[in-house]
Amino acid sequence: MGKTYIFGHKNPDTDSITSSLVMANFERKMGNEEAVACRLGNINKETEYVLNYLGMEAPELIESVEDGANVILVDHNNPKESIDNLDNVNVLKVVDHHAVVLTTGYPLYYRAEPVGCTETVLYKLYRENNIEVDKTIATLMVSAIISDTLLLKSPTTTAEDIKAVEELAGIAGIDPQSYGLEMLKAGTDLSSFSIEEILSLDAKEIDIKGIKVLINQVNTASIPDVMAKKAELEAGINKVIESKGLDLFVLLITDIVNSNSQTISIGKRTDLVEKSYGVTLVENTALLEGVVSRKKQVIPVLTENA
Amino acid sequence: MGKTYIFGHKNPDTDSITSSLVMANFERKMGNEEAVACRLGNINKETEYVLNYLGMEAPELIESVEDGANVILVDHNNPKESIDNLDNVNVLKVVDHHAVVLTTGYPLYYRAEPVGCTETVLYKLYRENNIEVDKTIATLMVSAIISDTLLLKSPTTTAEDIKAVEELAGIAGIDPQSYGLEMLKAGTDLSSFSIEEILSLDAKEIDIKGIKVLINQVNTASIPDVMAKKAELEAGINKVIESKGLDLFVLLITDIVNSNSQTISIGKRTDLVEKSYGVTLVENTALLEGVVSRKKQVIPVLTENA
Repeated sequence: MGKTYIFGHKNPDTDSITSSLVMANFERKMGNEEAVACRLGNINKETEYVLNYLGMEAPELIESVEDGANVILVDHNNPKESIDNLDNVNVLKVVDHHAVVLTTGYPLYYRAEPVGCTETVLYKLYRENNIEVDKTIATLMVSAIISDTLLLKSPTTTAEDIKAVEELAGIAGIDPQSYGLEMLKAGTDLSSFSIEEILSLDAKEIDIKGIKVLINQVNTASIPDVMAKKAELEAGINKVIESKGLDLFVLLITDIVNSNSQTISIGKRTDLVEKSYGVTLVENTALLEGVVSRKKQVIPVLTENA
Repeated sequence: MGKTYIFGHKNPDTDSITSSLVMANFERKMGNEEAVACRLGNINKETEYVLNYLGMEAPELIESVEDGANVILVDHNNPKESIDNLDNVNVLKVVDHHAVVLTTGYPLYYRAEPVGCTETVLYKLYRENNIEVDKTIATLMVSAIISDTLLLKSPTTTAEDIKAVEELAGIAGIDPQSYGLEMLKAGTDLSSFSIEEILSLDAKEIDIKGIKVLINQVNTASIPDVMAKKAELEAGINKVIESKGLDLFVLLITDIVNSNSQTISIGKRTDLVEKSYGVTLVENTALLEGVVSRKKQVIPVLTENA
């Protein structure tokens, strides 16, 4: 049936990259010989750590696919986070762990579960279909689950994620704590990034009851290291607010060791941050104790208070 | 976590009714003790045959559920075919085989596959989770697959449906051909229905590129028996066209034995039916050879030719 392009979201994280590789392997094992792992953007430092650890190549970088092509979406279903001509291709399958946004005019295979990571769903797919999870596949899977759940500490973590990490770490032959912390730390290396790049590293733009909000999350092992660039970050944020016409820019600087986030929040609706977390922003910043998950602890909280 | 209401689409068919019963059984087996099978409308004659065969009660009839309630949708995801306050409830899961129309603001368990029947997906769920499929559950499942695929003859039928029917018929201890034909024939008994009821038995209203179309399908073992009421059907169709402001009403009278459909098509866009099937409507009617599936052989064909 011709090539099947498999890719995660734009601005890919470790889950999007590893899930495209793992899903392509799964499809080939299931008889779809022409399944190809792809990506819609650059590899981040954390994912680079994983690929280097395995001595693996990154998936093929693509910007678009031809109209009518077969595609499989992993780790996303929102058309805004996907290829531009999604309406004109044939979505064969979706494997995901996000809210459902996509609509299709045709039946397809759609598998989403409310778990911490797409790889937890993929692990179940392998088990259900009796496909072997080898050492490489297990390492890709466990890396993504550790990444998405911040070492199983994020409130997005479910019992299924915990079980998957236990089993997969065994197959991968790694200690999830030490491997995971090294991997997460590799992802916090911001030294090669410009301010503009830092501010779009993991950016999600959403409309909350008519309020245009952009939430960008940056992981770190040391909040003070990132806050040393506060003035430059603020200047950069103001530029983004102007160019995108935002009402609120929330930068979350997330301490992956202590599970807290420092925010720099700027815009005419910063009151929403203050109300949502019962904090006062002093010179645009405040500590949000225990907040590490945009999906569980930021988007719904801002929405409730808007 | 309180009661979980499980239901199929309004105007329920055998798949919607049996899937709510089967999914409720699955949920209880998986530990969700308060899962309750429900239905959003009356039981049709075909489903009645299945429930009588098993000596089973129909699921509880509901019109709505309280805001904030937990629900599981089976055999549909289109809000138009569901409870009115779907936006205000918590959709825990969807198990379906239709195009994706629902959007949610939150992650959920969403399982859809492009197969002929929801029960084929549910059968896989039982297998994947090592839940026993007993004789009753197997009979409910196989009945729905036979119903949705017209005894595996509809073009919606997949290899997975065929395999499921083989295995389930064995567990149920039935011969799918003889049981299936009796069941389908029971569903064709129109004697107790008014013309208005016949015209809304399995009605689907859709917008095809701005053209308002209603397609209603009626199964029969004898097209002439139904065509004997042609004048009354035409009068009824004209009333529906006027009250709903339709551009086209397509009544499909489907011969389940010979796998053909006679159509009575009325409205200002009957040209679409003629163009789509290369037929000329004579006194509003034409034979559509080999057409039995609205999903595969009517909606996409009308859409392509619109």
